[in-house]
Amino acid sequence: MTSKNDVLATAERARIAARVLAPLSRARKDEALHAMADALVSNEPTIVAANERDVAAGRAAGMNEGLLDRLTLTPARIQAMAQGLRETAALPDPVGEVVRGSTLANGLRLAQYRVPLGVVAMIYEARPNVTVDAAGLCLKSGNAAVLRGSGSAYQSNMALTEILADAIASVGLPRDAIVLVPGTDRESVTHLMGARGLVDVIIPRGGAGLISHVVENSIVPVIETGVGNCHVYVDAAADLDMAEQIVINAKTQRISVCNAAEKLLVHADIADDFVPRIAKALNQAGVVLHGDERVCALVPEASAATDDDWTAEYLALEMAIAIVDGVEGAAEHISRWSSGHTEAIISTDSRAIDYFIAHVDSAAIMVNASTRFTDGAEFGFGAEIGISTQKLHARGPMGLAELTSTKYVVRGDGHVRH
Amino acid sequence: MTSKNDVLATAERARIAARVLAPLSRARKDEALHAMADALVSNEPTIVAANERDVAAGRAAGMNEGLLDRLTLTPARIQAMAQGLRETAALPDPVGEVVRGSTLANGLRLAQYRVPLGVVAMIYEARPNVTVDAAGLCLKSGNAAVLRGSGSAYQSNMALTEILADAIASVGLPRDAIVLVPGTDRESVTHLMGARGLVDVIIPRGGAGLISHVVENSIVPVIETGVGNCHVYVDAAADLDMAEQIVINAKTQRISVCNAAEKLLVHADIADDFVPRIAKALNQAGVVLHGDERVCALVPEASAATDDDWTAEYLALEMAIAIVDGVEGAAEHISRWSSGHTEAIISTDSRAIDYFIAHVDSAAIMVNASTRFTDGAEFGFGAEIGISTQKLHARGPMGLAELTSTKYVVRGDGHVRH
Repeated sequence: MTSKNDVLATAERARIAARVLAPLSRARKDEALHAMADALVSNEPTIVAANERDVAAGRAAGMNEGLLDRLTLTPARIQAMAQGLRETAALPDPVGEVVRGSTLANGLRLAQYRVPLGVVAMIYEARPNVTVDAAGLCLKSGNAAVLRGSGSAYQSNMALTEILADAIASVGLPRDAIVLVPGTDRESVTHLMGARGLVDVIIPRGGAGLISHVVENSIVPVIETGVGNCHVYVDAAADLDMAEQIVINAKTQRISVCNAAEKLLVHADIADDFVPRIAKALNQAGVVLHGDERVCALVPEASAATDDDWTAEYLALEMAIAIVDGVEGAAEHISRWSSGHTEAIISTDSRAIDYFIAHVDSAAIMVNASTRFTDGAEFGFGAEIGISTQKLHARGPMGLAELTSTKYVVRGDGHVRH
Repeated sequence: MTSKNDVLATAERARIAARVLAPLSRARKDEALHAMADALVSNEPTIVAANERDVAAGRAAGMNEGLLDRLTLTPARIQAMAQGLRETAALPDPVGEVVRGSTLANGLRLAQYRVPLGVVAMIYEARPNVTVDAAGLCLKSGNAAVLRGSGSAYQSNMALTEILADAIASVGLPRDAIVLVPGTDRESVTHLMGARGLVDVIIPRGGAGLISHVVENSIVPVIETGVGNCHVYVDAAADLDMAEQIVINAKTQRISVCNAAEKLLVHADIADDFVPRIAKALNQAGVVLHGDERVCALVPEASAATDDDWTAEYLALEMAIAIVDGVEGAAEHISRWSSGHTEAIISTDSRAIDYFIAHVDSAAIMVNASTRFTDGAEFGFGAEIGISTQKLHARGPMGLAELTSTKYVVRGDGHVRH
């Protein structure tokens, strides 16, 4: 059982490192990122050997092939992680950016600058590449990273963290810019969630259960990420060929990701035409269908959808379909069941589109485009630390700017208040 | 004892109203703000009568004169509250502002817009003017407001909320845009902190005890406000006349506010000269002094400062003074003891100023200016809902923009991901 003192001591080391990182120039941070990339490549055999121990343990424990694949680090994947660090080095430094500024009536000069958050903790599941991504993005934004990965990737994460921390130290920056939480049991998460004052934010990435556990129990501020119960609404004024292509893409192009579509809403006026057609196409793509009463009458192979279906993030070849009374009905359905990640409207009616944008309260609205585009790289942010589904601080794909806070600097020449 | 169901039902009413408020035009919101202002003025006798019951109860319960003064609503103060609503109406609407936008390589058009947070809950203490300020700022930013004021102002808050809600309804907007939590006991706060999904954010304003209670127990996201243990650092290169004026202003111009200075740090090289001088000036202004060992040797009337002094937000004519070894020592002291609100440096040495700005991690840094300037109105925001001392979402004075989230809208013409 991981002790509270061990976790707090780890966070304290990161806190001390964070104070060194905050005022660093971009050049020094980029030098560290390149050293980290080089170190991954030159230590490839060590990383592969550590990862093989995790993979063997996973296989022995009966881990499924999908998870084993996400856990496995090959030389090509290690090269890709190194390349990711070099691309992060090439991005502009968010720290120091002036967000707002003015000279006040009394002559005071006001400026609001971006500054690092301080200590960023990530809690995540099996993929060890998250260790490298998070370390790179936190370092670039001047934050220290406290990483708590999955037990199934612990050997890989230990090896990666040691190699990255050594690389950071090799250019004269603090090793503790990246620290791994000792232990991977539930207690290690519990103690991290209590480290208010040492940790500035916790970003949980993983399944809905992990995320809601952290959101409900942490006294450290949390950024909620990534549960995606995404909807596609096909309006009466849709181009039905376009609608079919987008629905198939959103549902099947990659099924295990949060921006995959899980629900289809169809305008009642076109349901008799479009529902059987899209059901056939989805069926051919191997998608299991659920439907409301009206859909089941049109699609014999669809089973009756339950409340669990309307809330589910399937992450599988499975979809629930409802027939709605226009864009108002679509917005109502989404408001009741969505996780607030991404919803798409397929329509050529500008009034329907405007209504959908105004009344659907989600992080991203796609108009005549697949839900799969909600992604930091697709949005041109260059890197992504996660996708926020909350409203405070950041909403949608989070890049480097979302790992910063701000500081006001006010310059006077003896100004006092009257 | 306030029941959970009553609090949740109140929040649910606000949630329904919030969905109506979110897409409203600026014109309709400003019309409501003017109706609210007019209603305050025309209902002045009702407000004064309700307030007199609170004041009489407070006096009977032995409330001190300072608190009684903050609780009292006079005709002039009611006019001022109405004027505040009219000034809020004159501010630009933050909702709909485009924060970021671009056309991506694949032709997708990306825009990030400001949208309301949804339901904003305020928990605050005796001042009933906060009821009107919060109602106005929330309405202007398209949010519904759930207000939980102090028990000592309950009659005033009930009268104000009824009048404002009627005024909102009179222009065809939902009455429940402003709701008062039933009850003012501890349970009413507890139930509000559990209303995740109904309430989007809780902003506690008041004493340090209230704020830390909410921060530690709420599962609704919280914006921490206002505890100010503010420091003034007088560097060796300071203009000592300017330093004296700023210290006196920051400490004594208004003592009960979070941006008043509570601590003075003096560079060791000028301590023999400046410490006796400023101690004399502070003494003449009636300020009780505490000091570290070196200060006490120079100032016989200063008592030895304890750890409690270094963390205290006195909100009184009281100040603790420490002698520090240069700007590095000042930054060290602040890092250990500050609440992260506002710190000032008095210096003409640009290297000391740059070091202070880079190494002091607070919401606002004043250079040769009084700490008293950290304020939404002084910063030109036109209105202030509080001063955030946390790093997520908002830091420093919060205006209308800080009561918003964002939404991405992505427009394509059949884009699918490959």
